[in-house]
Amino acid sequence: MVIAETNDTGNWTSEQICAFENIQLSPASTALNYGQTVFEGMRAVKTSKGKIVLFRPEENAKRFRRSAARLEMPPYPTDQFVRGITRLVRSEIRWVPPFGKGSLYIRPVMIGSGPMLGVAAAPSYTFYVFVSPVGLYRRGEGKLMVQDSTHRAAPYGTGDLKAAGNYAGTIRPQRVAAQYGYKDVLYLDAKHDRYVEEVGSSNFFAILKDGTLVTPRLLGSILPGITRDSVMTIARELMGWKVVEKGVTIDEVLSDASEAFFTGTAAGIQPITVINYKGTDHQIGTGIMGSSTKRLQECLMQIQTQMDPDPFDWVREV
Amino acid sequence: MVIAETNDTGNWTSEQICAFENIQLSPASTALNYGQTVFEGMRAVKTSKGKIVLFRPEENAKRFRRSAARLEMPPYPTDQFVRGITRLVRSEIRWVPPFGKGSLYIRPVMIGSGPMLGVAAAPSYTFYVFVSPVGLYRRGEGKLMVQDSTHRAAPYGTGDLKAAGNYAGTIRPQRVAAQYGYKDVLYLDAKHDRYVEEVGSSNFFAILKDGTLVTPRLLGSILPGITRDSVMTIARELMGWKVVEKGVTIDEVLSDASEAFFTGTAAGIQPITVINYKGTDHQIGTGIMGSSTKRLQECLMQIQTQMDPDPFDWVREV
Repeated sequence: MVIAETNDTGNWTSEQICAFENIQLSPASTALNYGQTVFEGMRAVKTSKGKIVLFRPEENAKRFRRSAARLEMPPYPTDQFVRGITRLVRSEIRWVPPFGKGSLYIRPVMIGSGPMLGVAAAPSYTFYVFVSPVGLYRRGEGKLMVQDSTHRAAPYGTGDLKAAGNYAGTIRPQRVAAQYGYKDVLYLDAKHDRYVEEVGSSNFFAILKDGTLVTPRLLGSILPGITRDSVMTIARELMGWKVVEKGVTIDEVLSDASEAFFTGTAAGIQPITVINYKGTDHQIGTGIMGSSTKRLQECLMQIQTQMDPDPFDWVREV
Repeated sequence: MVIAETNDTGNWTSEQICAFENIQLSPASTALNYGQTVFEGMRAVKTSKGKIVLFRPEENAKRFRRSAARLEMPPYPTDQFVRGITRLVRSEIRWVPPFGKGSLYIRPVMIGSGPMLGVAAAPSYTFYVFVSPVGLYRRGEGKLMVQDSTHRAAPYGTGDLKAAGNYAGTIRPQRVAAQYGYKDVLYLDAKHDRYVEEVGSSNFFAILKDGTLVTPRLLGSILPGITRDSVMTIARELMGWKVVEKGVTIDEVLSDASEAFFTGTAAGIQPITVINYKGTDHQIGTGIMGSSTKRLQECLMQIQTQMDPDPFDWVREV
């Protein structure tokens, strides 16, 4: 793993690579008491050309800074972020699965490590990154469940950050959905209970019957996914589709979507085939992965694995 | 501090008292990655009779269990909770300030300590309690600020739990309020942006001009404060006031409140004298602590410090 800490002047020490070992933390740390913790999720993959690559790591660095700032945590320098991760992946290169067999998942974390009795920013911080090889994303049936009595995030809260505290509350709804045979939860907005927000920790897209690709606009409660941004860019610029960020109601999805899918770093692009809303299953389109979803999925994967050219300069060899 | 851990069968080991020392934690723990952390805040005080007492510790134990359950964490036995804290306070009795000079703040915490790469419940948990002497609550001016672009919690989210992740997002709004000369933030509800929810990490009360004591009803986004409950009980049963839990709009507070105050374990009962709403300062009542607020404050304090009888059986000698 990589580790760095803030020093007495509040600046970051240069990052060290060390063995994966326990973190030592004050029982009064703000990470453990007040959730002053942010993270990122990234992947290193072996490509068709035999290279090891990261996908848009500068975007993760930027989002990491933004998440930290909202929780009054110090900015971590973008170049140091990318350099530390590049060094770590190089040193753990034996753990990157072969082409097409999975990826090395990368988890950068920043925690408030210093003690603070009241609710306030910590006096010191720790940055670390660990990695773990993971297999291919397990494709499920693409069945999602809207739960009446659950919201993920308030408007103007912390829902648009990768803050640790956004996730603990999703464990129970996800388990309930799984019990009923659904892959994950489809969250509606907290204000109107009508607008689609996210799928667990993935972004939501629908292709309407007129061919428009729609996705919920970012109004402060939805994570600005990097795969989300990549999908919109590919759809607009490589496919020539009409792409609209807007309020997407659940009724519109159920009545007017011919395809739907969710996106994330680990998931890539995964089809949504059924949505349970108010106790009733609604099939989306034909109930299997649609052809447009499949085209997007392949296009993204082929850019990420150097099978296709990289017109947007997204892929970084380590 | 007190420490206990879940064993291989998921049950809690009996609690140990040990020196205050760093916690060892996996970098992949759910506490650090997904905010699977809950806590409580309690106080031990030396009373007018020279005893050391806790205030309604069983209520903290119950809320702790409820918080843990919502985050898919194991229940911590109520008797073990109270026993561990009682043992700890006894062993640290020299740190309890003299009568009237402050208290020993007690912080029970439960964290997901085992590693989990995806968003899911941890395989193992750690419970710990640490204590710190604190002085009297620093009385401020009682000026609060409503911030347009901030919400604390979504309805049906985790706002009604003492989950660590609810607090990191309040650090920045609190700092902004302090910069403008306000003591804390008054949060409105995320759905209508009209109903008063909480003051930072304290509950809100207003005394209307007709003498009714009102406080926001608990609909899933407001912490069910133990001081809140105690204040309602005292007002109803000792003062004979009319007490109503209901939706309390900010407009109603500004136009119809003759007094307002906030409550919490550390704060006790503290007056609210000014509320800034949409950029304008509104004075509440006479702009100083009202006589009814003062009566409640003294009544609660006198029960807590054994100056008055304890009609509700709230005080526990350790």
